[in-house]
Amino acid sequence: MAKTTTLKEFESVFPKLVDDLLDHAKKYNLPEQFVKWYKTVNVIGGKCNRGMSVPDSVSLLLEKPLSEEEYFLASTLGWMTELLQAFFLVSDDIMDTSITRRGAPCWYRQPDVGMVAINDSFMLESAIYTLLKKYFRSHPAYVDLLELFHEVTFQTELGQLCDLLTAPEDKIDLDNFSMEKYQFIVIYKTAYYSFYLPVALALHQQNIATPENLKQAEDILIPLGEYFQIQDDYLDNFGLPEHIGKIGTDIQDNKCSWLVNQALSIATPEQKKILEENYGRKNKDNEAVVKKLYDDLKLEQMYKDYEEKRVGEIRKMIDEIDESGGLKKTVFESFLSKIYKRSK
Amino acid sequence: MAKTTTLKEFESVFPKLVDDLLDHAKKYNLPEQFVKWYKTVNVIGGKCNRGMSVPDSVSLLLEKPLSEEEYFLASTLGWMTELLQAFFLVSDDIMDTSITRRGAPCWYRQPDVGMVAINDSFMLESAIYTLLKKYFRSHPAYVDLLELFHEVTFQTELGQLCDLLTAPEDKIDLDNFSMEKYQFIVIYKTAYYSFYLPVALALHQQNIATPENLKQAEDILIPLGEYFQIQDDYLDNFGLPEHIGKIGTDIQDNKCSWLVNQALSIATPEQKKILEENYGRKNKDNEAVVKKLYDDLKLEQMYKDYEEKRVGEIRKMIDEIDESGGLKKTVFESFLSKIYKRSK
Repeated sequence: MAKTTTLKEFESVFPKLVDDLLDHAKKYNLPEQFVKWYKTVNVIGGKCNRGMSVPDSVSLLLEKPLSEEEYFLASTLGWMTELLQAFFLVSDDIMDTSITRRGAPCWYRQPDVGMVAINDSFMLESAIYTLLKKYFRSHPAYVDLLELFHEVTFQTELGQLCDLLTAPEDKIDLDNFSMEKYQFIVIYKTAYYSFYLPVALALHQQNIATPENLKQAEDILIPLGEYFQIQDDYLDNFGLPEHIGKIGTDIQDNKCSWLVNQALSIATPEQKKILEENYGRKNKDNEAVVKKLYDDLKLEQMYKDYEEKRVGEIRKMIDEIDESGGLKKTVFESFLSKIYKRSK
Repeated sequence: MAKTTTLKEFESVFPKLVDDLLDHAKKYNLPEQFVKWYKTVNVIGGKCNRGMSVPDSVSLLLEKPLSEEEYFLASTLGWMTELLQAFFLVSDDIMDTSITRRGAPCWYRQPDVGMVAINDSFMLESAIYTLLKKYFRSHPAYVDLLELFHEVTFQTELGQLCDLLTAPEDKIDLDNFSMEKYQFIVIYKTAYYSFYLPVALALHQQNIATPENLKQAEDILIPLGEYFQIQDDYLDNFGLPEHIGKIGTDIQDNKCSWLVNQALSIATPEQKKILEENYGRKNKDNEAVVKKLYDDLKLEQMYKDYEEKRVGEIRKMIDEIDESGGLKKTVFESFLSKIYKRSK
């Protein structure tokens, strides 16, 4: 039987990896003052859902709990997805001029950090390849692992590019939005690295990353990731702050969200005008007008209909998975069960 | 006989590579609007000394002019060093709040660019791996090439980190400077990617990148790169603006330059006080005081003595190269001859 990892178990792997990275930097005779800096760049954290899904997927593929060594290696790949995410979040926060991240000031807004954070984000990315070399250089899938990280990195950058050009915070133009662009941004900026990457890593680690298995995984995980982000956008407005742990800001931040795209697609000319006059403004009154419009347009029900339909389709795809090459339906069922009807 | 490439020949390779990169991005169904953006991120340019040194080194290793295909592949590796440099320069300019680069406003200061430039710099880095995969996936040294780029990228990031922490533009503290730190910054931030990388690429392409050959190359190219940067710092103050194509700004910019470190190492307490009161200030009067002190301290002569001594040592190392493994002294002589006593 597979066993699900806990955050505590997963976190217990990290100190060893930090030591590895410090040892690597010290090999270059990095002066002591800078070793200290490197050590304090601690932007890793949060729920680690992406990272933990690597050991969880490996355990489901093997249909057994992992040995200590298996767990360490799978979790090391998991931590690489967390490093990749940290690289993106540190730099995204600068590009979006965000204020807080996980309840604390963003890294670039910490004392004495500032634009050095750009270089720090690069070093987080580099850490992935340092760890890959240390632990996977003799793995038969080493080249595939390198190329997978390169490709997913590039895909996420493409998504970020489109997001930045579609919804600059200071230039409100709803004609710029479209469901087509929304879909592109969500798939590339989020779905690949959050959903496809962890499972692809698990398949590579188990040497069953055949083109057929990767394709089956991608065909399910990308729609799943899209659904996850649409749900995120839904919760930003309709979720309870005490559940989601923050107060939604998508309307004030001019975000190219599923809700605003949905609203634009069904709004009357008058309603569209209301949206144009109130979306993306940094105050509560304009925001309240948009929220009211969302209610008038019955977006909550529309989301619920979408969710039921989409989840039904995804369930059907999971059901049709060909397990003969070592892929397991349970890997995808596990992802879906964590997402379906979540409130946080 | 080897043949030296010209900028025109080298540049003629680039349009094909841009097409490759656009084709790659289009495979992901990148919406047309963004393809255009991706195409305009044209921060590549300049003298291309680093890039051209790859085909030049390959030609010297082979002791013959390159065939068209050989030239294309060697220049493609050369363009990857230019892409790596572009990645660093675009982001360094943001971190340093620089104003101009190669006579034009820095990329992040171009209309409508701003902080999107951070993501653009990431995409320049990604382009390296896209091209490596396209042209070198079946090369026996593919993994070595990937690891070489990862390692040199990390080394340059370490150098940039130390530079940023040692000489923040807004916090003048000369006690922070030291020759030890200077040397670390110069070697990691500049020498590895500008000098070691092109030759290591040429050796890998020719399948003669044995540990012995790489070590011999590193042992000469790192001191050569250090000498090059010291010369750059010297020319910033003592070079003629009409030769170097810019007016030096190291003193006003609080740069951890060879000259200020040299000055600090021989200054009397009174002279050190003068430095502390005038270095890193954004005006001509303070700058003139520092320039006068540099003259009083006879830094020009000190540099010339350093240059003669260092070049003698480098010549001796080149002379002692073991060519039995395919390495050629001419590769290093070619680098040295381009640098020695340059005025621009």
